[in-house]
Amino acid sequence: MNSEKDIQPLKLPSWKDKALFTPGPLSTSPTTKQAMLRDLGSRDNEFISIIKDVRKRLVGLGGAHEEYTTVLMQGSGTFGIEATLSSVIPSDGKLLLLINGAYGERMLKITGIHKIETVPLRFAEDVVPDPMSLHEALESDPKITHVAVVHCETTTGIINPIEEYGRIVKQFNRVYIVDAMSSFGAYPLDLRDCNIDYLISSSNKCIEGVPGFSFILARREVLEKTKGFARTLSLDLYAQWQGLEGDGQFRFTPPIHPILAFRQALLELEQEGGVTARGNRYHANYEMTLSALQNMGFKAYLRNEDQGHIITSFYYPDHPNFNFRTFYEHLSEKGHLIYPGKLSHADCFRIGHVGRLGISDVKALLSSIESTLKEMNITLGAKK
Amino acid sequence: MNSEKDIQPLKLPSWKDKALFTPGPLSTSPTTKQAMLRDLGSRDNEFISIIKDVRKRLVGLGGAHEEYTTVLMQGSGTFGIEATLSSVIPSDGKLLLLINGAYGERMLKITGIHKIETVPLRFAEDVVPDPMSLHEALESDPKITHVAVVHCETTTGIINPIEEYGRIVKQFNRVYIVDAMSSFGAYPLDLRDCNIDYLISSSNKCIEGVPGFSFILARREVLEKTKGFARTLSLDLYAQWQGLEGDGQFRFTPPIHPILAFRQALLELEQEGGVTARGNRYHANYEMTLSALQNMGFKAYLRNEDQGHIITSFYYPDHPNFNFRTFYEHLSEKGHLIYPGKLSHADCFRIGHVGRLGISDVKALLSSIESTLKEMNITLGAKK
Repeated sequence: MNSEKDIQPLKLPSWKDKALFTPGPLSTSPTTKQAMLRDLGSRDNEFISIIKDVRKRLVGLGGAHEEYTTVLMQGSGTFGIEATLSSVIPSDGKLLLLINGAYGERMLKITGIHKIETVPLRFAEDVVPDPMSLHEALESDPKITHVAVVHCETTTGIINPIEEYGRIVKQFNRVYIVDAMSSFGAYPLDLRDCNIDYLISSSNKCIEGVPGFSFILARREVLEKTKGFARTLSLDLYAQWQGLEGDGQFRFTPPIHPILAFRQALLELEQEGGVTARGNRYHANYEMTLSALQNMGFKAYLRNEDQGHIITSFYYPDHPNFNFRTFYEHLSEKGHLIYPGKLSHADCFRIGHVGRLGISDVKALLSSIESTLKEMNITLGAKK
Repeated sequence: MNSEKDIQPLKLPSWKDKALFTPGPLSTSPTTKQAMLRDLGSRDNEFISIIKDVRKRLVGLGGAHEEYTTVLMQGSGTFGIEATLSSVIPSDGKLLLLINGAYGERMLKITGIHKIETVPLRFAEDVVPDPMSLHEALESDPKITHVAVVHCETTTGIINPIEEYGRIVKQFNRVYIVDAMSSFGAYPLDLRDCNIDYLISSSNKCIEGVPGFSFILARREVLEKTKGFARTLSLDLYAQWQGLEGDGQFRFTPPIHPILAFRQALLELEQEGGVTARGNRYHANYEMTLSALQNMGFKAYLRNEDQGHIITSFYYPDHPNFNFRTFYEHLSEKGHLIYPGKLSHADCFRIGHVGRLGISDVKALLSSIESTLKEMNITLGAKK
């Protein structure tokens, strides 16, 4: 297009975006976003080779074992969870679901809709599911074919011991599904060591890409046996995999730009030093946030030993002037977005430690929290 | 992040992207892509107001009638089709499907998977379904509750008369579903005049956004009656609508960046003069392409009167040196991407006329086709 009418000025916002202290979508690097300034044909060679590269790098992050493959699925993380649950469990299958938060409950909702027989094994939101209960449940019910669990329940920030569960699931030779939505890329993880058959995560979590798709790391020989199990067309995991393995293309239009951003994000993860280095950065963010907030008088919801470095839940302070909406808005005006709580039985807010944020961003958040408390006339009993 | 390690050079490609003469994803404006250079909180006010603005503008493009509403759905266009078909037809419903191409067949596949009783009314791929057949089918089967049809079958580029069908569907008081994936934004369309209850299109078609979501324009009072009909969680149209109408948020993580691009694309559509002006530009692209290719000796698959200005199918020329892959690669090397055929019974390639492309881009394509024919030593019998 050459006519003058089409030449439009660059309309970028002149303000700096707020820092996202959330569980995702996260703050991302400028270069990750700039990777989206392209127009690529979704069925052209260049894009096909990018898909291939992304899929290979993801297998690499899971330990680079030959027996694993990657499926990318359009939509949010929940689409990836539903794609997996509705595609890999046969009509006569039975799922055991470890639940200690909203994302476990969501899996139960999905299997309910698809009429997949499911046994929920529920624990309180501040309790790590006991591996012995899993052992007993599998021992007592030989009809169970699949087990699913959430790695980091972002409801609270709790980390569930997926490697320990994996040993038990394998001992009973069941299929093991892990929702690693908010943990993959933030904690070193070896798919083989954890005995994982399916791991689900999404583009806008700790790989630090933008939202648009989820990805499923699957043990090839297990996935291969699921042909025809799917209960939908769009979310058919096996068919999606066959498309990607066949001509290398998506069956249906892919989210090209989020995939371009994701490829750049994967390169930058490597540049940072891989998952260990990234996990260390997140952990430093977490430690500084936790100790500063505790010193200000806030109380964390979880015990330290159950708490991960993805996101932390803090109780609303017991002060008459505290109002979450006001607190949120004041922090937002200062350029920091935090997250509301999601607990069923306690009033909490959440602060994320992930995304392209470092110590200087955390320091800025902490001083904003301090001044916001002053503005709201809230004095908390400091820790010591 | 302030450490030196994090400061990375701008890694933009130094080449110009190829012009996409495809049915979408399409070439988009630089400003549309630049709108994605942001990090927004998916549950923050700024993004919520952007969602609201996009939904309102889409209703505006369908005639701005009060009785319509918009639902945005993560994933590709097919996700939007499956969301609609699997969410709005009750278990005792019956669908009549007009089919004259691959996208009609895909709807049949979807209803098959969801076990929705469906009557396919099939026509050849080069034939516009006869409105009288629709009339007869509805007259003879009072159990039919819903009718679905594709507006522009990009299999061929044929345009089906959705307004005429709509009159008949309303005469029999059935629910009318139109797949306007590749036509919405390219042809002026009034939802009320066409008696449409559900229209489905996607972000990466003639609004000229990037891929990442589909949208459904729905008659509110019809959608309101579909609570509990959905057969999935992720693709539950009613629940998605309730979320957007309630707190203004997506139920599950939205494709933030494609939505930002889409909002900019909607502004640029308005700037261009709306759907009529855009349709005129596409029509000029189409006319120049068709007449030039016919003059070179190519034959169009469809009769002119059935052919729309979205995409045109051309027969492979009857020449021993013609090979589509070579033809495609030569054009690609010159910066133009065309599209393979999708016909069940004829060898064709396709050229799209849509996206951010104008006469100068078409001229460049045409001269590339001419020189490619020379390079391949192909001489065709010119038209006259």
